[in-house]
Formats: sequence, structure tokens, C-alpha cells
Amino acid sequence: MLSSQHDWFSEWYQAEGVALSWTVESHLAHEITDYQTIDIYKTTHWGNLMVIDGCVMLTSRDNFLYHEMLTHPALFTHPNPEDVLIIGGGDCGTLKEVLAHPTVASCTQVEIDEQVTRLSEKFFPELCERNQDPRAHLLFEDGLAYIQGLSPGSVDIIIVDSTDPIGPAEGLFGPQFVQDCYRALSDGGILVQQSESPLLHLPLIEGIRQNMSQAGFSDMATLGFPQPSYPSGWWSATLAIKSGALSEPDPARFNAAGLTTRYYNPKVHVGALATQLGLIERGKDSS
Amino acid sequence: MLSSQHDWFSEWYQAEGVALSWTVESHLAHEITDYQTIDIYKTTHWGNLMVIDGCVMLTSRDNFLYHEMLTHPALFTHPNPEDVLIIGGGDCGTLKEVLAHPTVASCTQVEIDEQVTRLSEKFFPELCERNQDPRAHLLFEDGLAYIQGLSPGSVDIIIVDSTDPIGPAEGLFGPQFVQDCYRALSDGGILVQQSESPLLHLPLIEGIRQNMSQAGFSDMATLGFPQPSYPSGWWSATLAIKSGALSEPDPARFNAAGLTTRYYNPKVHVGALATQLGLIERGKDSS
Repeated sequence: MLSSQHDWFSEWYQAEGVALSWTVESHLAHEITDYQTIDIYKTTHWGNLMVIDGCVMLTSRDNFLYHEMLTHPALFTHPNPEDVLIIGGGDCGTLKEVLAHPTVASCTQVEIDEQVTRLSEKFFPELCERNQDPRAHLLFEDGLAYIQGLSPGSVDIIIVDSTDPIGPAEGLFGPQFVQDCYRALSDGGILVQQSESPLLHLPLIEGIRQNMSQAGFSDMATLGFPQPSYPSGWWSATLAIKSGALSEPDPARFNAAGLTTRYYNPKVHVGALATQLGLIERGKDSS
Repeated sequence: MLSSQHDWFSEWYQAEGVALSWTVESHLAHEITDYQTIDIYKTTHWGNLMVIDGCVMLTSRDNFLYHEMLTHPALFTHPNPEDVLIIGGGDCGTLKEVLAHPTVASCTQVEIDEQVTRLSEKFFPELCERNQDPRAHLLFEDGLAYIQGLSPGSVDIIIVDSTDPIGPAEGLFGPQFVQDCYRALSDGGILVQQSESPLLHLPLIEGIRQNMSQAGFSDMATLGFPQPSYPSGWWSATLAIKSGALSEPDPARFNAAGLTTRYYNPKVHVGALATQLGLIERGKDSS
């Protein structure tokens, strides 16, 4: 089907009858860890490509969209985010974005598989350039257990930067984990979870939102954004706030923070907040 | 590479080393016209798929994103759009969105290849449901020549809903055509052109903007939006206004118009206007 003169990496998303493929120059790494299989490819046009258990995690070229949109909407919604926790996020791209915020005093990343971070340091060094920041704490352990061990009200923001809801990340999409996050968050704290494609995964997103609602979060929003390397090229992050309402960001605060984002800005944030899941769903019968 | 137990349609975007593939159930049509080759496939999960000269034009499932974002930002920016011209647009999805606006008195669609429309009527009937509206005028002729024959200042909005800038659509990306559009537009008139991917086609977008600027347009903006079936899943429309500045939309007017959009709304419009091409470009070296 595709030219046999080239080597390809393909992710076939069988549940939705679509595949995304990249031409690759070499297979840089193949590691079988205690948790999963990690592959790194050098592509012809997208820089390096990380794949876990056959699913694309990121490419050098387009990961900025995901990392910015998983981080900045939450951090610019909270009035003063000081203590941030990342569950997953082993490539360290989210950590890098969190540490761009001058208010952050501490950011702990709890990744179950240390090899994700070690391979990212080698093949995505631009994502790891803040790993030595004194505010960064990299732990390699189970995020589900870690959350349960936290003191109540001790974290301002929890970012769930997980793989798809199969394998080691499955528990991160369950109700108990969301309840544990609620307990660990301070008053006005925010939970943000990567929540797959607004076009392809509406039932999953509804499940995430239902878990958040049942855990006691007072307001939620699912923000859409482009993400070329993931199925459909349209992805989302779902935010939930422990008390109060999710507000639109303050442009003055963004300007004062001095971030060098490539996609995120306060108006993009406003637009993403306006993603209307119920309307996307309406056309489902025509597909 | 992909499972041989299934039939696939693949578009390999060679210039950027990426391919998008769909599992297909049947090949519904294959027509060689005076201008191009048109294929229609029935996919397993995306409804019908139209392909022209090997490039994906639309699927039933996701075309709403493109058609809404090519139409509504322009029509909600113009204070009173009455006369609208579509160049290309043979699938009639843009026409359908234009005619949803109660202010529109006339919408002329100039598609060079009548077979695109005939196949759309058959395989995408939901896009053609306003083709019989008395305000709709479907012409099958060369858009370049049509624009040159228009009286100066006779059109409020021109929408260039073209294929990629190769083959019959090439002239629609040239400076002469943009000058002709400028002349045909009324004072305050708006030109909107589909302008490919913000991630993959920045030089092309810059060329479009340069043509618009040199033709005399007083303000321009490139609006990004998700479009799963096109390369990178992230697409754009570039708007230019003949006089004055492109403003943000008025939510009250949107609410009063009573449109049933699935993606577009005034806040999504604001977010799309905030797409910062220069910032996306900044990371190019890392790819």
C-alpha cells in the first residue's frame, strides 16, 4: 500500500479504521522494560519518534502542542500555583512547561517507568533541559500509590500526563484515582488529565468527566487542540477545579510570566475552553 | 506494513514523510474528468471518502470542521454579508454553511468540475441539502475567468475553497487571482482562502499573505483549526479584509443567527484568530 522503497512506522488505530505512518531512517532504540516496550525511531521529517507498546507518544516536531495545552491552561487558571504534581509525563516535556512558570516552587513528576525518562534525556534532550532545575523532583514509582500517600490538600495542581487507558495507565482513568486526586488537592486546586480525541473518544471523555463530578469537583471543561501525531490529529485535556468555577485566563498575567510558547496564549485558551463536546457528538450518525 | 487483511486507502504526503490511511469497505466511484481523477470510497469508520488525484478532499465524518471554519469566521466578521462567491467548493459543504446565514441574499459557487458536485450529491447528500435554495447559484466554469468578468465592488465575500495548489487550483494561489478578488470585492469585503497546514506549509501561507498584502488588503489573519483528514490534522483559513481591520465576532449576532454549528462559535473564532504563525515556525529547527 505504501511505497516499499521506504521504511515506515505505522500506528493503526483499529477501533476507528485509521492509521498514521511516518517514513523512518533508523530504529534508534528498542527496550523491553518491566512495564512496556519502548521504541525510538529517527523519522525523515518529524525528528525523533517515541512509541510505547505500538502507540505513538511523541515526535520532536509536534509535541509542543500537547505539552503546552496540558500545562498552561491549568497553571494560568489557578491564581498562584506553587506545588505541582505530574503523574506520568516521563518524557519531561510537561515538566519543562510547568517550570516555565515563575510561581511554581516545586514540581514532582511520578513516572512509573524510569526508562521513558532515560530515553527522553538521550533522544529528546530539548524536553529535559529543566530536569536539573532545583524545583524539579523526578520520582520513578507508581503514581496511584503515590497519590494515596499524599497529605490532604497538599498540592495545587495535578497533571495526569498518561499513556492511553490500557496497560499501566488504566488505573489513571478510574474513579478511585480521581477521588484520591481530589483529596490531595488544596482548596481551589486543579486536576488536568489528557483525555484523548474529541472526535473519536467521546464516551471516554464523558467517563473522565463523570469521575470528576462524582469525586466532588465543582467545575470541569474539556479543551480541544491540534495534535498531529495522535489519532485524528485533534486531542483534548480535561480540567476540573476543586472549588469555584474555571475562569478564562488573564492576559496580563500571561504577558508578565514571560513564557515562550508556540501555540498557547490566552485567546487560544479561551477558544479551547469553548470546545462543545455535545455538538461534535450531534453529527455522529452521519459517520 | 499495514494489515493485508484489510483494504486501505492511503494518502502519502511525501514532502513531509507522513501518510494517513483509512480502512475501506468498497470503491464506490472512479471517474476521470477533463480536469482530474475523482474516487469515492466507503470507509469502515469515517463514512464516505472523496479523493481527487490521490489527495483526500473530505470524509463524511470530519468535513464539518473545515466547512464551518472556512465560512463562519468571514461571514461573522463582515457586518452584513449579502453577496457571497465561492470559488471551487464543488462538494457544496461550504455553500451549505453560507446559506445558513440569514443575511445572505445570493451565493454563487463557481466549480470548474461539475462531476465533483454530481458525485457529492450522490455520496455526500447531507452537504447538498441547500443546493435547491433559491439563493444558490451553481456554475461550472473556470473561477479565474469568472472573477475577472465581475463588476468591481460587486461581492461582499469571496471564499476560495480549492484543492491543493497543484493542478487546476494552482492559479488560485497566484498574485493575479488575489488582485482580481480585491477588485471584485465591495468596500469592507472579505477574501478567505483555505491555506493548508500551519505546521507543514508555512512558506505557502506566507506566500498567500504576501499576495493579499500586495493586492491592497488592509488586514489579514490565518485561523488554525483541527482537520483530521488532511496532512497533520491541523489546517488553516487565511482571511483578508479590503478596508479596515479584522475584528473579533459579536456573540450576540452569532446567537441571533440561530446556526447549528458543531465546532464554530465566537470563542472558537477568537482562539483561531490567535494562531501565531511566527511562533510555530520558531521550533522548526528542532524537527
